[in-house]
Amino acid sequence: MKIALDAMGGDFAPQAAVDGAVLAAQQLAGKARIVLIGQEDAVRPLLEKHGAAAAELELVPASQIIEMGEHPAKAYQQKQDSSIAVGYRMLHTGEVEAFCSAGNTGAMLVGAMFSVKPVPGVMRPAIANFVPKLHGGLGILLDVGANAECKPEMLEQFGELGSLYAQYVLGIDKPKVGLMNLGEEEGKGTSITQAAHQLLKVNPHIHFIGNIEGRDLFNDKADVIVCDGYTGNVMLKMAESIYDIMADKKMQDPFFDKFNYEAVGGSPILGINDNAIIGHGVSTPLAICNMLLQGYQMAHSGISDQIKNTFKS
Amino acid sequence: MKIALDAMGGDFAPQAAVDGAVLAAQQLAGKARIVLIGQEDAVRPLLEKHGAAAAELELVPASQIIEMGEHPAKAYQQKQDSSIAVGYRMLHTGEVEAFCSAGNTGAMLVGAMFSVKPVPGVMRPAIANFVPKLHGGLGILLDVGANAECKPEMLEQFGELGSLYAQYVLGIDKPKVGLMNLGEEEGKGTSITQAAHQLLKVNPHIHFIGNIEGRDLFNDKADVIVCDGYTGNVMLKMAESIYDIMADKKMQDPFFDKFNYEAVGGSPILGINDNAIIGHGVSTPLAICNMLLQGYQMAHSGISDQIKNTFKS
Repeated sequence: MKIALDAMGGDFAPQAAVDGAVLAAQQLAGKARIVLIGQEDAVRPLLEKHGAAAAELELVPASQIIEMGEHPAKAYQQKQDSSIAVGYRMLHTGEVEAFCSAGNTGAMLVGAMFSVKPVPGVMRPAIANFVPKLHGGLGILLDVGANAECKPEMLEQFGELGSLYAQYVLGIDKPKVGLMNLGEEEGKGTSITQAAHQLLKVNPHIHFIGNIEGRDLFNDKADVIVCDGYTGNVMLKMAESIYDIMADKKMQDPFFDKFNYEAVGGSPILGINDNAIIGHGVSTPLAICNMLLQGYQMAHSGISDQIKNTFKS
Repeated sequence: MKIALDAMGGDFAPQAAVDGAVLAAQQLAGKARIVLIGQEDAVRPLLEKHGAAAAELELVPASQIIEMGEHPAKAYQQKQDSSIAVGYRMLHTGEVEAFCSAGNTGAMLVGAMFSVKPVPGVMRPAIANFVPKLHGGLGILLDVGANAECKPEMLEQFGELGSLYAQYVLGIDKPKVGLMNLGEEEGKGTSITQAAHQLLKVNPHIHFIGNIEGRDLFNDKADVIVCDGYTGNVMLKMAESIYDIMADKKMQDPFFDKFNYEAVGGSPILGINDNAIIGHGVSTPLAICNMLLQGYQMAHSGISDQIKNTFKS
């Protein structure tokens, strides 16, 4: 099995990408190979510094870079030899089974939509993120930004996508799906969440436990937290800022330490035909390594086939 | 000046209400009198236990109670001698200059809408809440639940209402107004936030600084944070849960301690003709006391007149 990494993506690329890839290659030895995609001149010397360990990695050349500030769709179209475009091409042809990048988020989404494409039946793929649970384990929160505005049917599908991920990748049996809302009662919320509640309630593929509130993000009420991308994005960035404030204050705690994005590594795009993960722009080698391990877990679990099978019917 | 308190509102009423009112009366001595509204049989004995201090408070009888679980509009209509209905009547007639309750939030909103009524020109009043800022002071976040769904024009007005509160009650000169969004760029967000951005940008009454993100809630980018009631409610409850988790873990920090709702006391309803504040259901005497002090500050500042003048034009 091969897992690809955009060696040019992220604020500290290619250094952090190469270092993270080497770390991941050690942990995945015998199970998967890491494929670095990027400018050979820049990546090769960094890789060689790692000596023998570097021999475990492959390097696939890509001459162009989509910068962080570039217009995603334009850049993706114009830079067909960018590391992101090459990565998606390899993913699409099956040369690699997962593609990870800490680069331009919008370009990663564009590639997902136009190269590997949404699974038939999925209205709109979602970006998922993970929240640490007080009593251990992770919950999955989606959407966190791919779709600012959502129809009720999209929220229903996010419940299904998140539930499949929780089951097959996180290993949660019969994951509890909750709808983020401003009250627990069924009639609460916007017209969108009210309608989504009714759809989720009768969906046979999931275990819907009803509305949850902002205070339930970290408790055990729900394993899968469904919301529109606007709300999910606000919650995610708020949680990140709390971690940053605590880190500045040198406050340490085993639970709050898990708010650190490095611990998980990346945000999978769910509902597309292959496994793609978007990393944080400031990704460190540890974050890159964890993103690659997550890519391996996704590929190993067969999550994208599970999604295809569920939405085929 | 008189500030009224619903003595029967909140999970620990009337005990917490009476104790909190006595605390506040001591701090407001010579400036304002506290008026307790509730069942005489229940409140009088509790008040008498405070001895001489109790002489500073008035007690206005109200025979009925709107319970926490009751349907707000029905209960408000049917229980015209409830402490909430009596409180709003006194507010409307000018017998008191502010009314505070930790009781049924919905009934407090109903009373605000049907008794004292929205200020002419205000489309929909909002419930505001306060967020501690890392570098000191408070920010104001609105709406936090009165309006799950908002039109762009409502969000624009929330910016004006919050700005007036920040200026006249919090004492912030030229408050910075930010629109909660999933990205800083002008074109980001839902169709609602995009349209609201354009309205806020050209509003001559406020100092709009553009979009802010979930990570900016606690920093100095904006003093006034504008969002729909669904998003505000999710953020507020998430912040509360973080305080609760830290309290459980006995983690202490001067900044995070300010997440404690007790420190501010209550959430003002902005955009109505008088000063009304909704307290947390679990309000302690300290929270009740701070809510009453906030009621005094609102009345003293003349905020509701400022709002009327702004929206008259």
